[in-house]
Amino acid sequence: MKDTVKNVLFISDGTGLTAEVLGETLLTQFPDIEFKRSIVPYVRNTKEAYSAVEKIKKLENKSSTSPLVFSTLVDDELREIIASSGVKVFDLFATFISPLESILDCQSVHKKGRMHGIRDYDLYHYRVNALNYALNHDDGLSHRSLENADVIIIGVSRCGKTPTALYLAMQFSLKAANYPLIEEDLAKEKLPDLLRPFKNKIIGLSIKQEQLYRIRQERRPDSPYASLKQCKKEIQQALGIFEVEDIPYLDTSSISIEEIATRIVQKANLHRPGY
Amino acid sequence: MKDTVKNVLFISDGTGLTAEVLGETLLTQFPDIEFKRSIVPYVRNTKEAYSAVEKIKKLENKSSTSPLVFSTLVDDELREIIASSGVKVFDLFATFISPLESILDCQSVHKKGRMHGIRDYDLYHYRVNALNYALNHDDGLSHRSLENADVIIIGVSRCGKTPTALYLAMQFSLKAANYPLIEEDLAKEKLPDLLRPFKNKIIGLSIKQEQLYRIRQERRPDSPYASLKQCKKEIQQALGIFEVEDIPYLDTSSISIEEIATRIVQKANLHRPGY
Repeated sequence: MKDTVKNVLFISDGTGLTAEVLGETLLTQFPDIEFKRSIVPYVRNTKEAYSAVEKIKKLENKSSTSPLVFSTLVDDELREIIASSGVKVFDLFATFISPLESILDCQSVHKKGRMHGIRDYDLYHYRVNALNYALNHDDGLSHRSLENADVIIIGVSRCGKTPTALYLAMQFSLKAANYPLIEEDLAKEKLPDLLRPFKNKIIGLSIKQEQLYRIRQERRPDSPYASLKQCKKEIQQALGIFEVEDIPYLDTSSISIEEIATRIVQKANLHRPGY
Repeated sequence: MKDTVKNVLFISDGTGLTAEVLGETLLTQFPDIEFKRSIVPYVRNTKEAYSAVEKIKKLENKSSTSPLVFSTLVDDELREIIASSGVKVFDLFATFISPLESILDCQSVHKKGRMHGIRDYDLYHYRVNALNYALNHDDGLSHRSLENADVIIIGVSRCGKTPTALYLAMQFSLKAANYPLIEEDLAKEKLPDLLRPFKNKIIGLSIKQEQLYRIRQERRPDSPYASLKQCKKEIQQALGIFEVEDIPYLDTSSISIEEIATRIVQKANLHRPGY
């Protein structure tokens, strides 16, 4: 069976994002198998469910093996239609909802598309405001209202500050400013004065020199900015500042944006709205 | 049992994001219960697992009922430690991994923190490049290299273009430009000339007038820009352009950023890397 491509279908009555996360998390445990993914989102009536079954049948005919199906469908009728295809369905609701009902001593509402679905006006604005904050305070753009930041991310150019700040806003509705340590800051071997009042909410990012070199070379090939010597010097100076000023920091070289962001939440002991 | 606050714990050997999505998706089905959430991420050794058990015990002592635990721990030993707390654990791996192993006819690697964990250099750069693209092509900032966009989002000011473009980049590594239809564009009652060559990858966003009014009032209270009359006029003109030019569009008023983005992927038939 190994070395053949396995088809995977994510079926959902909403965006499909939950089905995908559920399935992908499990599939990462089978690194030797090549998976080919399709998503069937917004399955909200019997017609769409039968059309999903068609897709399953088509994939079954094309391949020597049945596709894997991960489903987060809530509606019993729609789930039964998918089950009628005869393939094994990894079904989040069928599996977990009744033990959850019994432990909560409460019937579930069985409503479709609730996760990532209906917009909660306040939450939406909290999130969009956090995104606007991150955009307005990207790359040291504005030093105004730094007192409103939940966290200020500092580090040398191209160490991952911007994606991290945007992720913190998008995923956790946290206001993250980011400030680049440029040569002038680094030469002073201490925190820039304008950041000092906010020292207790500063997190440093570092990166391995080879990684920074690679990223900067892609951006400005063969420039002094991208030289290995310059990368090494800046990183050492930044680390020096983190040490002298006792600023918590983490190395972004081999971790994902999600991990950088969640490590920051942990390190800075940030309180996400609702948590 | 209803109307009391129920504690929920998400336990993970990684970021905790998967445990959270799994749990939150199920909890949305119980809208009458108030849940209080905590996350215990990066549980990677027995010491941290015992410390998670301590947290469970503390929550148990504070409340009249046991906390709900959602876990994505992969390691058998760590899972057993959590189970030893005696509370009901909703366990993604224990539930799904062995049926998956048998259907794939393949042992899983049982490695911790694989999802959202190790950075894949190429994927990381694909994603960061998409984010940079979205930032550089936010709000009509640059008209250069629009030919490289996967999708171009148009609509009136404050209808949700920027968050959507950033989400498409962050989540799906898709390059999304966004272009605001300003009064000058709207008055022409047709697509701006500079966008015409890219018409086949344009998606329109619309919004209900009361919603736009509310958002603009927050931004610039009592300005002509934020008046209900102006909101109504701009929305009608934008819809007129979508109709005349046969541009697919969607209304963002009551749906989440995730839903706007996934609807766009569906409408524009976008191919996400790896899908």
